[in-house]
Amino acid sequence: MEIAILLFDGFTALDAIGPYEVLTRVPRAEVSFVAAEARVHRDMCGAGIVADRVIDDVVAPDVVVVPGGPGEVAVRTNDHVLSWLRAVHETTTWTASVCTGSLVLAAAGLLDGVPATSHWLAREELARLGADPVSARVVVDGRIITAAGVSAGIDMALLLASMLEGDLVAQGIQLSLEYDPRPPFNAGSPDVAPPVVVELARAKSRFARARA
Amino acid sequence: MEIAILLFDGFTALDAIGPYEVLTRVPRAEVSFVAAEARVHRDMCGAGIVADRVIDDVVAPDVVVVPGGPGEVAVRTNDHVLSWLRAVHETTTWTASVCTGSLVLAAAGLLDGVPATSHWLAREELARLGADPVSARVVVDGRIITAAGVSAGIDMALLLASMLEGDLVAQGIQLSLEYDPRPPFNAGSPDVAPPVVVELARAKSRFARARA
Repeated sequence: MEIAILLFDGFTALDAIGPYEVLTRVPRAEVSFVAAEARVHRDMCGAGIVADRVIDDVVAPDVVVVPGGPGEVAVRTNDHVLSWLRAVHETTTWTASVCTGSLVLAAAGLLDGVPATSHWLAREELARLGADPVSARVVVDGRIITAAGVSAGIDMALLLASMLEGDLVAQGIQLSLEYDPRPPFNAGSPDVAPPVVVELARAKSRFARARA
Repeated sequence: MEIAILLFDGFTALDAIGPYEVLTRVPRAEVSFVAAEARVHRDMCGAGIVADRVIDDVVAPDVVVVPGGPGEVAVRTNDHVLSWLRAVHETTTWTASVCTGSLVLAAAGLLDGVPATSHWLAREELARLGADPVSARVVVDGRIITAAGVSAGIDMALLLASMLEGDLVAQGIQLSLEYDPRPPFNAGSPDVAPPVVVELARAKSRFARARA
């Protein structure tokens, strides 16, 4: 089972590494980081992660995962990457995104009228690109699975693992990652975070700046 | 504020990237991956992450984070790294570990008699190395903060962010990562996972193999 996680400059590291850590533990899975060029890609804060394979060499992955991050804006107009996504989606078992990675799937034309999610600050943009935005942690529609912001990729990948190899496998992975989350605060969604925190996040958002 | 995350070959990627994603969002924080050599380090499943700085050049970080992973065994006998950890711990605000990274702190002599945690499968080994193992998600003792397995580094880093810059900052980071976890199963600790899943994990553990 071949699993390809797309990298690009300016991605969000945890968007990619959360699913990576889960999916590498799926039996028979071969997970690799892929990109238009096989080289180190820098995340939005400067961390370097290696794309070991070029997308042109990855022609029929079973699963594709597209992370988000501010660099997604450039990917949305990168015909090389968008064409590859359209081509491999023809035969994937699952085509997945984390956070604003769904904006890339939408730009590739894969989410027209499709129920999908994204980072909570990006759902208006997701609608603008033709998808049917859903306020949910993970959305499954046909062979497309989209996750909300950043950390939601871990939940998405566990669901993927269960759909690929069954619940016991997914539970074993969850236990190996000791994924028994205990956030010290209850501020992980705009519905529960303190209003001042939500307003500050909205004001700082690159999507708010784009509208201004 | 200088934050150094240690890399070594055979680390667990999410142990490092979970805290990275949180701590890079702390105002004024400069987060870098550091190692004995400035080069790509491969995690336990092959992902390459770049250590941009050598530990010899990082003499007084405010925060040090040590991830775990099977490669930690070699680090436990690496005098260069252990000496560096002992030296920088003299002046850190916080010395932190994720998962079996606490075994490295223990090997450096920083956990003698200190309440600390680790991956649930590694707590006996942690005791053998002189620490006082605690079954908890995150343990704070003086300037030392240790997290349980893999994903616990996210919770640990949010707590660190709040102790460094206050609760509102930590809550803003949690919201930006949309860290409102919704695991599809309740199997993240041996207390709640199905017994067959727990037994399989114990049987496969490298610590079980070491005892056999």
